[in-house]
Amino acid sequence: MDLRPIGVVIGPSEDEVNRNMWKGGVKGIIKVYEEFKEGLLGIENFSHIIVISWLHKITEDQRKILIVKPLRMTDLGYKLSELPTLGVFASHSPVRPNPIGITIVKLTKRQDNLLFVEGLDLYDGTPILDLKGYYPYQSKDVRVPEWSKKLRSKV
Amino acid sequence: MDLRPIGVVIGPSEDEVNRNMWKGGVKGIIKVYEEFKEGLLGIENFSHIIVISWLHKITEDQRKILIVKPLRMTDLGYKLSELPTLGVFASHSPVRPNPIGITIVKLTKRQDNLLFVEGLDLYDGTPILDLKGYYPYQSKDVRVPEWSKKLRSKV
Repeated sequence: MDLRPIGVVIGPSEDEVNRNMWKGGVKGIIKVYEEFKEGLLGIENFSHIIVISWLHKITEDQRKILIVKPLRMTDLGYKLSELPTLGVFASHSPVRPNPIGITIVKLTKRQDNLLFVEGLDLYDGTPILDLKGYYPYQSKDVRVPEWSKKLRSKV
Repeated sequence: MDLRPIGVVIGPSEDEVNRNMWKGGVKGIIKVYEEFKEGLLGIENFSHIIVISWLHKITEDQRKILIVKPLRMTDLGYKLSELPTLGVFASHSPVRPNPIGITIVKLTKRQDNLLFVEGLDLYDGTPILDLKGYYPYQSKDVRVPEWSKKLRSKV
């Protein structure tokens, strides 16, 4: 089960990413390494792509954490006591046993091995593991937790 | 960049999975290993979850392939000549440099460390790398390739 990065994020400062986390993300470039470039054939026909990344800032110790609070929500003005306590698998916390990130981004332009995207929540230098064309998932009965509906009302 | 399975798929026969690939997938169980069970806290409040898996049947040689045809579509009655030639990153082919699968499934029941789900396209024994609560992605301007709209009309 070994992974090989197929590309890397070229993005703005961490500060800018953090500031825009709740505002639809930032603009950036996904640079696919030359040896994997062929795999991009036809990707420009998708308006959105799924970006699978390795959250490289997560430490070995953080990978042992199984219970979290969605701390980033304090950016929205919430107090710690107002945030739910969650298992990592019920959250999108970057802290988790396998720090794999999933982001759906808008693909605005492809220039050879460079993908210009909007909606990134990833830092400059984040290794990319995989890309997949995005198809909207259709289901009428999607339900999200109450805490989430309430807290996200501030976004 | 090492991965540790956090669970495993308990599912029906491969034959059944393949037969139902275009019919919304199969029912199965995701068994989360005891040591990671705590990470499930609150997951039952989501109707749907994102399942991130390691497509364990992909060989080292298949990980070098960058151009594919969506061969599974021959199940729908298409001839090989009717199928587009695609880069792996523009497809959801299991053949890709990092054989990571993403499936959105319906969570019908949680029983301790067992998650009963519907909509699986994974084989019995597939290692699970991560789970995340599913939030519907909202975008008005999602566009998918013409070939896909045409071919999927048979589903």
